[in-house]
Amino acid sequence: MRLAMILFDGFTALDVVGGYDVLANLPGMEVTFAAAAPGMIAADTGWLGLHASTSYGQLAATDILYVPGGPGVEAALADAALVSCVRTLAAQSAWTVSICNGAQILGAAGLLEGKRVSTNWFARAKVAAYGAQVVPERYARDGRLVTGAGVSSSIDTALFLAGLLAGQEVAQTIQLGIEYFPDPPFGNGTPDQQPPARRAIIAAAEAGAAWRLAARRIPF
Amino acid sequence: MRLAMILFDGFTALDVVGGYDVLANLPGMEVTFAAAAPGMIAADTGWLGLHASTSYGQLAATDILYVPGGPGVEAALADAALVSCVRTLAAQSAWTVSICNGAQILGAAGLLEGKRVSTNWFARAKVAAYGAQVVPERYARDGRLVTGAGVSSSIDTALFLAGLLAGQEVAQTIQLGIEYFPDPPFGNGTPDQQPPARRAIIAAAEAGAAWRLAARRIPF
Repeated sequence: MRLAMILFDGFTALDVVGGYDVLANLPGMEVTFAAAAPGMIAADTGWLGLHASTSYGQLAATDILYVPGGPGVEAALADAALVSCVRTLAAQSAWTVSICNGAQILGAAGLLEGKRVSTNWFARAKVAAYGAQVVPERYARDGRLVTGAGVSSSIDTALFLAGLLAGQEVAQTIQLGIEYFPDPPFGNGTPDQQPPARRAIIAAAEAGAAWRLAARRIPF
Repeated sequence: MRLAMILFDGFTALDVVGGYDVLANLPGMEVTFAAAAPGMIAADTGWLGLHASTSYGQLAATDILYVPGGPGVEAALADAALVSCVRTLAAQSAWTVSICNGAQILGAAGLLEGKRVSTNWFARAKVAAYGAQVVPERYARDGRLVTGAGVSSSIDTALFLAGLLAGQEVAQTIQLGIEYFPDPPFGNGTPDQQPPARRAIIAAAEAGAAWRLAARRIPF
């Protein structure tokens, strides 16, 4: 089975790697990282990149199309070639996955109309504007569309998809392999339960995405 | 504040990126990825690598030394230069962190004698052999040593360290930023609570680490 993970400047690393370290451990999975052109693609934080081995224009088809999010999504939405490739690949794939505000890219590709969709909490209005029914859940499935909430939800979302693909026992074995028995030191609780001041800081950081990306120092 | 993340062939990507996406978001953090030599370093799964911008021999000092785990640890233990650099950097750093069986590298560097240490469940005996008091916890602190359990514990461990460095409110704001409100689709529970058959599959995979690494196809 083929998994194509789409990279673009300013993606969030954990959106990708949380899903990768689950799905790449499914027996027989072949993974391709694809971007506008092959080479290193910088994550939002600036010191880390992932290597795209091919351009998404070269991807004829995939079984799982996986679109991460990150502060780079706003610029990616203006990339007509990216959006077009996502539309084409999704039409032929068995599963289409987004994490975080990567759902906006699926929306721009016309894939969310009337669909039940999760996304990160600060992108809900933007995703709803594409006609999606946004749900405040860790992940959501609508047919062959599987969408996750923010960043670290990539792990839960990929475990859910692994269960669909290979059964619960395989998914739970992978969960043991990546030792995903979370225990956040300061407790859990949904984004909606966080104090307004804390939400305001993150919302401001997201609103300043262009500034954050410009301030990176990328050593590759 | 400087964070040095050590890379070696066959590290586990989520060991690194889970911690990275927490700690790199601390205000003023500067991150360096260091390996035996600069360049792409392949993760265990074979399609993903991370770029080391420097060699660890070139790292004069760091504030946080971060050593991930992975099936490549067994070979890394035989790398005298790596173990020596970890010993030297740890002596000068404010914090030394390991994730997963990366604790074995700290042990080989003589850093675990008498220390309270967490590691992944299948590496406990090996870590105890270095004189550590191994505890089956998500993360453990002993002085300026912070050690995590397997792979995805990198997130919890880094949030704990972020709380020590910058306070609980900052750590919880980063937690909201990476939307770490975990909800594993098939439930939680410690590795010790998993069925023996499931543990046996993972233990066999770990025992066959050399074979797994040799079977990789690395497209960079």
